[in-house]
Amino acid sequence: MAISAFDHPFLSGLLGDEETGAFFRAGADIKAMLAFERALALSEGRAGVIPADAARRIADHMGRFWPDMDGLREGVARDGVVVAELVKQLRSAVGGEDAAHVHVGATSQDVIDTSLMLRLSSVLSLHRQRLDDLVAAFHALDQAHGDRRLMGHTRMQAAIPITVSDRIRSWSDPLQRHAVLAQSILAARLPLQFGGAAGTLDRLADKAAAVRAGLAAELGLADVPQWQSQRDRLVEVADLFSRISGSLGKFGQDVALLAQMGGEISLSGGGGSSAMAHKQNPVAAEALVSLARFNAVQMSGMHHALVHEQERSGAAWTLEWLLLPSLAVACGASLRLATDLVGKIRSLGTV
Amino acid sequence: MAISAFDHPFLSGLLGDEETGAFFRAGADIKAMLAFERALALSEGRAGVIPADAARRIADHMGRFWPDMDGLREGVARDGVVVAELVKQLRSAVGGEDAAHVHVGATSQDVIDTSLMLRLSSVLSLHRQRLDDLVAAFHALDQAHGDRRLMGHTRMQAAIPITVSDRIRSWSDPLQRHAVLAQSILAARLPLQFGGAAGTLDRLADKAAAVRAGLAAELGLADVPQWQSQRDRLVEVADLFSRISGSLGKFGQDVALLAQMGGEISLSGGGGSSAMAHKQNPVAAEALVSLARFNAVQMSGMHHALVHEQERSGAAWTLEWLLLPSLAVACGASLRLATDLVGKIRSLGTV
Amino acid sequence: MAISAFDHPFLSGLLGDEETGAFFRAGADIKAMLAFERALALSEGRAGVIPADAARRIADHMGRFWPDMDGLREGVARDGVVVAELVKQLRSAVGGEDAAHVHVGATSQDVIDTSLMLRLSSVLSLHRQRLDDLVAAFHALDQAHGDRRLMGHTRMQAAIPITVSDRIRSWSDPLQRHAVLAQSILAARLPLQFGGAAGTLDRLADKAAAVRAGLAAELGLADVPQWQSQRDRLVEVADLFSRISGSLGKFGQDVALLAQMGGEISLSGGGGSSAMAHKQNPVAAEALVSLARFNAVQMSGMHHALVHEQERSGAAWTLEWLLLPSLAVACGASLRLATDLVGKIRSLGTV
Amino acid sequence: MAISAFDHPFLSGLLGDEETGAFFRAGADIKAMLAFERALALSEGRAGVIPADAARRIADHMGRFWPDMDGLREGVARDGVVVAELVKQLRSAVGGEDAAHVHVGATSQDVIDTSLMLRLSSVLSLHRQRLDDLVAAFHALDQAHGDRRLMGHTRMQAAIPITVSDRIRSWSDPLQRHAVLAQSILAARLPLQFGGAAGTLDRLADKAAAVRAGLAAELGLADVPQWQSQRDRLVEVADLFSRISGSLGKFGQDVALLAQMGGEISLSGGGGSSAMAHKQNPVAAEALVSLARFNAVQMSGMHHALVHEQERSGAAWTLEWLLLPSLAVACGASLRLATDLVGKIRSLGTV
Repeated sequence: MAISAFDHPFLSGLLGDEETGAFFRAGADIKAMLAFERALALSEGRAGVIPADAARRIADHMGRFWPDMDGLREGVARDGVVVAELVKQLRSAVGGEDAAHVHVGATSQDVIDTSLMLRLSSVLSLHRQRLDDLVAAFHALDQAHGDRRLMGHTRMQAAIPITVSDRIRSWSDPLQRHAVLAQSILAARLPLQFGGAAGTLDRLADKAAAVRAGLAAELGLADVPQWQSQRDRLVEVADLFSRISGSLGKFGQDVALLAQMGGEISLSGGGGSSAMAHKQNPVAAEALVSLARFNAVQMSGMHHALVHEQERSGAAWTLEWLLLPSLAVACGASLRLATDLVGKIRSLGTV
Repeated sequence: MAISAFDHPFLSGLLGDEETGAFFRAGADIKAMLAFERALALSEGRAGVIPADAARRIADHMGRFWPDMDGLREGVARDGVVVAELVKQLRSAVGGEDAAHVHVGATSQDVIDTSLMLRLSSVLSLHRQRLDDLVAAFHALDQAHGDRRLMGHTRMQAAIPITVSDRIRSWSDPLQRHAVLAQSILAARLPLQFGGAAGTLDRLADKAAAVRAGLAAELGLADVPQWQSQRDRLVEVADLFSRISGSLGKFGQDVALLAQMGGEISLSGGGGSSAMAHKQNPVAAEALVSLARFNAVQMSGMHHALVHEQERSGAAWTLEWLLLPSLAVACGASLRLATDLVGKIRSLGTV
Repeated sequence: MAISAFDHPFLSGLLGDEETGAFFRAGADIKAMLAFERALALSEGRAGVIPADAARRIADHMGRFWPDMDGLREGVARDGVVVAELVKQLRSAVGGEDAAHVHVGATSQDVIDTSLMLRLSSVLSLHRQRLDDLVAAFHALDQAHGDRRLMGHTRMQAAIPITVSDRIRSWSDPLQRHAVLAQSILAARLPLQFGGAAGTLDRLADKAAAVRAGLAAELGLADVPQWQSQRDRLVEVADLFSRISGSLGKFGQDVALLAQMGGEISLSGGGGSSAMAHKQNPVAAEALVSLARFNAVQMSGMHHALVHEQERSGAAWTLEWLLLPSLAVACGASLRLATDLVGKIRSLGTV
Repeated sequence: MAISAFDHPFLSGLLGDEETGAFFRAGADIKAMLAFERALALSEGRAGVIPADAARRIADHMGRFWPDMDGLREGVARDGVVVAELVKQLRSAVGGEDAAHVHVGATSQDVIDTSLMLRLSSVLSLHRQRLDDLVAAFHALDQAHGDRRLMGHTRMQAAIPITVSDRIRSWSDPLQRHAVLAQSILAARLPLQFGGAAGTLDRLADKAAAVRAGLAAELGLADVPQWQSQRDRLVEVADLFSRISGSLGKFGQDVALLAQMGGEISLSGGGGSSAMAHKQNPVAAEALVSLARFNAVQMSGMHHALVHEQERSGAAWTLEWLLLPSLAVACGASLRLATDLVGKIRSLGTV
């Protein structure tokens, strides 16, 4: 039973997101790290860095291998990263002379950052699809109620009437911009991380470029120079997560205020109270505000992690691990809750 | 398998803290919430709010009752809080006429906030003990190496020599202040939360004071007026967690810099590298910096949650749930890692 | 004498940036707000919303008008925004029947947000130029010292040798990405804000589109629907500021660590100490770290301001005013200091 | 003309606080730094570290000396701190053999941190007084309207009626706790900072304790060992500033929501709109929310500054300079605005 609300046995019913979370579970990480090692062996086999048949045998092993988790846990406690222990177990499983051909020229950061990029690609695809669905849901809401009248409020005071369309635009337009950014990141493909011990691929000598290109192609990532101490690419994605949840926080806050004032919104469902049977609390609306603020807080840490000293900062890198999964899941939960909430709006505005 | 590093199958080996985490697992929360309902029934039985024998029967039930977790999860998704569903299950378990005597005059926030206070008391006791142990460990280190010479550094430049004692004082003195604060919070006892639907204990009429006093005594908490929308008490504790991890971040940073420069520190253990066998990475030292920055980031959200509108803010309250358990566990992990790290210092300074 | 370090009589010598700061001074804001009112009158004159000759006379007045600052200060204290008072003074200066033709159909947010966009365009241009200059300076450094050897450090431990080029790439590559983003924002032009009282341009009826298009053209901004409660465009710019200062924080941290370890870097200049004449503190390098962390902190607030309720949130909007100018100036100061610091590197690496 | 809203020619009318700000202006800092140098000379004269008559002459000079500000600005740009240049100018003003008796055994941090402590003492006294006044104002409001009825709201939904007293307690009780903390910090006196070059007071040898005690007594600060790299004392004060503004943010949010719903609050004054004459915007209420969120954001940076490496971290120390003055002024502005706002409540609740 987990302490984080995103994994929590009962809190995750409101705040979690199964689909997004799946990409940050240890199993998904291990699968992606093994995909890296497999692709590396194949690419190095093709480039002649390791024997081609050793490469094939290593690749075959990946389908059968699964690490001992207790060992990994001890490895992280000891080494600060999982890769040294994972590679040790992997080499032991591969055995014989092939063992020496595993993980050749790579370093921990290559494996971990590339695994993250593979999984972030999937998360971005998922979230982009949800953004599209949500924009479509807002469009449908607009079709149904857009011409109705809503009291416009500025500075928390009734101002002049607007239309429901006007308000829906303020919810939907930012999402369309976020979808465009997600799509442009996906279209450029997320970057492979591959640099070796200190980023120079020194052990691969003149075959470095070919191995990297083959590795990137195998994994469907962009073939770019290593960026191990350049964390702005991650910040770009993290910032997108927080922009999405932030924009949905505005939607949630607006719905909560409409529900409070009454008369202009009708919601199906709504939460019960342990003390007052008559209440219909706008639970999802409030949770959208909480998740927006949560991510606004976390963002700060991702920007701190830009101060990534030298060739690899244990401190800055570990900080990302503490922050990014929750940022992504909070974004996913926001998209899930917002879609639910739009579906619960039975009417909006007045005739 | 959890997404949060604090619960993660392998990352928690470095970043988690079992002992602190235990207080934030769903089971501990449920146990504390049931303790609240039990103490409430007993106190209301004594005050004549409910029949005394009903109170006893309800109290007896608590030892045998355990909620259906799937039901709780659905309850939180629907209601935004777990209590409505928990009380429903509890009443159903109690059955008959006694069911109506469960949770009388209480509201969700009474149960959840009080459960949190009970568990925070335990966490503070645990951390206070660890602070004392750590201060003792620094004292022992001082006894062993305090007279030795260390190059003082100001603005990342060698300045003039200091003693090892001088440096150890900068690590240990803040911890002593934190221990004093933890002790003073514990000595005043953490506050009971008990206010009923909107904080007025309206359903208990002239017996409200007696019920609250009995409830507080039963639970070992301070008997104070409800503070449901006054969250500064939580911020006080959260701030302490972050002050502790922040002070230990300085210790970690100092050790990492000593290890980088070489010559003045000798550490046993240290992390291996998947690419470079010769390295002994100061893993715990770096993790202390990561955890310090993590908590410095989270603190911000706890201060935002002070803007807790009206009698109960779903948005601000939920934000606390997203932040506080991680803050506490990060503090616990810092204390654990720092104690380990002190134990690994084989020598410090030069003769 | 100002309290903020960015304006401070002596601290701004290190931490301020005159050129960036100039765009956030009240005078620049007033000038831009008057440019808005002038362009609005001209566009409304052309569209027949107000008499063409009144429009010309109003436009002429703008060259001669300057508001009474004490009045503005009282206006902000009273109204929460400067525009009501500014327009009142402006109408009084214009006088006669023309007075009624000033600010027709516009609202405070149109004036203030558009003024900000005009000035942010200039700031982005300035920073883009500085990014280019800095990339060029890194290129020159690479030409001079790139082939030399530098000890690569991972996890604060000496790892294997890299080249000076390798390290410089980690400083310069992110800046090139930031320059591309700055350029793409500039190329799309920043957006005009124009929506009237509640965003509907209701007072301009069927002439709204023409007036808005003319206004945008006059001001050189993009002609887009009002976005008054959609603050993601601002977050995009703010995030860029923080990505720049964050990337430069890594440069600063690396230089400070090089200076601490000695042997691989030689810097001209460097700060004196009041107590130790022998020290040459890497002042600019440390300030880059401070500014990176400062902006990483501020970013968080800009993401919170995405929760901008209803048609105009006084609370969220005011929060932006408290944060954005400092974010921009800290970014500008980082660029200034980094350029200075590159210029002070006399040698890097070893032969 | 300043860029910061707190110093801004017109924005400071709403967001600034003259009285608090005064303690963070360069003039107040210089005055306090000269008070340190004067007290140091006197204490060293008494202890026989410098000739007693030189001490008297130096002390006399302080009344007549005022530094050249342009020189200080250049000094900070060069040295990263103002003290080297300030002491140089001071020694030049003192002249002759006495010059060598200025600033003996002290370092930059002694002067700057002690100056800050002197001024923070004044700020805390001011804020404590304002807290008392505000608590009294809430008490008067309670006397006038406390028995009236107010609709209690939980989760942004009407719940059950409470009394006006109930709501006022939620605003006032946290302030009383903050006042107690402010008072306890003041009663213990803020700490002198005095450690010399690397914190060891090495140049004062066996007279160090006497000089420090005399210096503390002269300045009215607590005589404690140097804490130059232990920044938790500052965090304690900063956290208090943010707790105060956060608690007042709740008050502001509540008033804004009351004003939005209408019927239960009547406010005199209120802000005008440039577009809608009928509106009475709750400007101060919204500003309280903005200031609460601003300080919640800044807090994070102060906790980061706990990671203060070695004997003096330029990066962490400078970060404090960028954050603390604004934190204090935002707190002061919150107290000012809240007091104003209470005074504008003409009625609260219904009969």
